[in-house]
Amino acid sequence: MSNFQDLRRQAGRLITDPLVPLISRLRLTPDIMTAIGLVVNLVAAVVIGFGHLLWGGLIFLLAGLFDLLDGALARYMQKTTPFGALFDSTVDRVTEGALFLSFIFITGVGAWPYNVTFQLVLIFLALIGSFLTSYIRARAEGLNIDCTVGLFTRVERVIILTLGLLLSQVFIALAIVVVLSFVTVGQRFVHVLRQARK
Amino acid sequence: MSNFQDLRRQAGRLITDPLVPLISRLRLTPDIMTAIGLVVNLVAAVVIGFGHLLWGGLIFLLAGLFDLLDGALARYMQKTTPFGALFDSTVDRVTEGALFLSFIFITGVGAWPYNVTFQLVLIFLALIGSFLTSYIRARAEGLNIDCTVGLFTRVERVIILTLGLLLSQVFIALAIVVVLSFVTVGQRFVHVLRQARK
Repeated sequence: MSNFQDLRRQAGRLITDPLVPLISRLRLTPDIMTAIGLVVNLVAAVVIGFGHLLWGGLIFLLAGLFDLLDGALARYMQKTTPFGALFDSTVDRVTEGALFLSFIFITGVGAWPYNVTFQLVLIFLALIGSFLTSYIRARAEGLNIDCTVGLFTRVERVIILTLGLLLSQVFIALAIVVVLSFVTVGQRFVHVLRQARK
Repeated sequence: MSNFQDLRRQAGRLITDPLVPLISRLRLTPDIMTAIGLVVNLVAAVVIGFGHLLWGGLIFLLAGLFDLLDGALARYMQKTTPFGALFDSTVDRVTEGALFLSFIFITGVGAWPYNVTFQLVLIFLALIGSFLTSYIRARAEGLNIDCTVGLFTRVERVIILTLGLLLSQVFIALAIVVVLSFVTVGQRFVHVLRQARK
């Protein structure tokens, strides 16, 4: 197992080692590389959602390169920071969420009533938002950053979803969960950023 | 904000305070309460998936009670452990995943071709498995438990999904991601359990 991970790390270095000095000369920081990776990943998700799997796959591969490079650049510049690690991990989860969401559209769901697609997207976004809210806190705590702030945590989600079920208004409840979860993710992210700047 | 959270905590205590001494006399441990909560939540998800929203909502509410009680019992018995905290958090994520998955079936997806439902479930499980793999590690690290083991982490997921896209076999790739992600979640969970027993 760990042999495989060593091999993987070495293979990664074969790609990143020649590129990292060039990038650092371009004055790109690791966090900027992470942000570029996020954008490229989102483009890949949109392309895949439109059914262009091969092109989407190639763009996704390019995004993976930025993913390798942010960490490698941080180590090369000796600029590994807890904020950078949290940003990188959070972006990884967001891009995975976006990729899986794009897969919904290649099941042929587009051919069904419009409101069904909308409902499926809502369920998906609610799951992603809920997971991200909990993930960002767990990851921050793993990096010794306090992250207990948050408007809309699990208890609030449970209350809203219970009301949605009891009143047969699940999709209204989900819409509330989506909006408030992503607000909370933003809130926690800004909180971490502020602590990092101190 | 923090006033609201105080209020919420007090409301929670109004429910748990009279129950906790009773439960501790029944020799139920906090981890057993978490496990019962998991089962009740999964039952709620199945009931909701079959379209019985009101009953599902009531069972979900009952599951929420166990969710309040495990932590309250642990504090009452002075048995709060890192393993218990990780178990509780992981179960929270699993039950949220199950609940959101059950919502797929109330969109009316059952009326469409069988393979579409299957594909949607596959996408959903792949997202849940991927998130859980990363979550369990982040949460363990937040509790100062090392959790770097794992057969199938993000890099492996990216490789399999890229191949799936390039070869136009996305759903085969997703099936692999589902199986190996959940194996990895189990692997990490057992790893944490073993460390906790030392």
